[in-house]
Amino acid sequence: MPTPEPREPRTRKADTLAMLARPAIDVWVATASAAGAPYLVPVSLAWVDDRVVVAVESSSVTARNLTTSGTARLAVGPTRDVVMMDVVLERSVDVADDERLGAAYVGQADWDPRPSPGYLFLVLRPVRVQAWREANEIAGRTLMRDGTWLV
Amino acid sequence: MPTPEPREPRTRKADTLAMLARPAIDVWVATASAAGAPYLVPVSLAWVDDRVVVAVESSSVTARNLTTSGTARLAVGPTRDVVMMDVVLERSVDVADDERLGAAYVGQADWDPRPSPGYLFLVLRPVRVQAWREANEIAGRTLMRDGTWLV
Repeated sequence: MPTPEPREPRTRKADTLAMLARPAIDVWVATASAAGAPYLVPVSLAWVDDRVVVAVESSSVTARNLTTSGTARLAVGPTRDVVMMDVVLERSVDVADDERLGAAYVGQADWDPRPSPGYLFLVLRPVRVQAWREANEIAGRTLMRDGTWLV
Repeated sequence: MPTPEPREPRTRKADTLAMLARPAIDVWVATASAAGAPYLVPVSLAWVDDRVVVAVESSSVTARNLTTSGTARLAVGPTRDVVMMDVVLERSVDVADDERLGAAYVGQADWDPRPSPGYLFLVLRPVRVQAWREANEIAGRTLMRDGTWLV
């Protein structure tokens, strides 16, 4: 199958927002410890008010790394239709303590963390967003920089 | 669709080895800088002599992080049929300088890095391997520990 022509920036942004809003979509969350040990895990995602929301155990490596460093790098989609995001931790809240956020999360994800003791919602604000499919889309991949959409 | 029964450890190992040997398969490579900045990128994978081999530019963040720290965390497959691997950098070699490795890489991956100046093969040795599909496979997910297959 020939590689399709590279998408226009506006199309990439529209495809990105559609992917982030997709029901039952997962996200790869890459974090690092203060000592520089990399960590990576797939979790369910919700896209709420232009933020990525994930639910993790407060004792998990991901929660500890994010709470300490405040940063993560995310990937959504398959390796050849990917949205990469550098994010900062905006806030974390016990899953039982934010009714509106809980409802929004459960409305998109395919599981409900609210009955699980010790789970947190991590609210992640994108600062850089990139989207590409094949090598011919590497040019023009950056859609958001310093928290501002370029398109 | 109901969640299938969890797979036996031997089945998970067989599925894992089959996935790693699949033509044109990609791997998510999570690394971290010495300062603890997480990085993540998808690249093509080859499985050669029980090692994960990737080809990256020597100046890339991934190459720099791996050369400095010696460790990465990898994910192969979709989020709900995943092989997670903690790996150590065994060696790196210019893509033009190891004919046998180059032939093995090109035999599995769907591109040929050998004509690209500045590209390195990174040879990554697994020390921990985990495989799961859905939540009911979290128990029993560890297939290799301290570099030794448990099954």
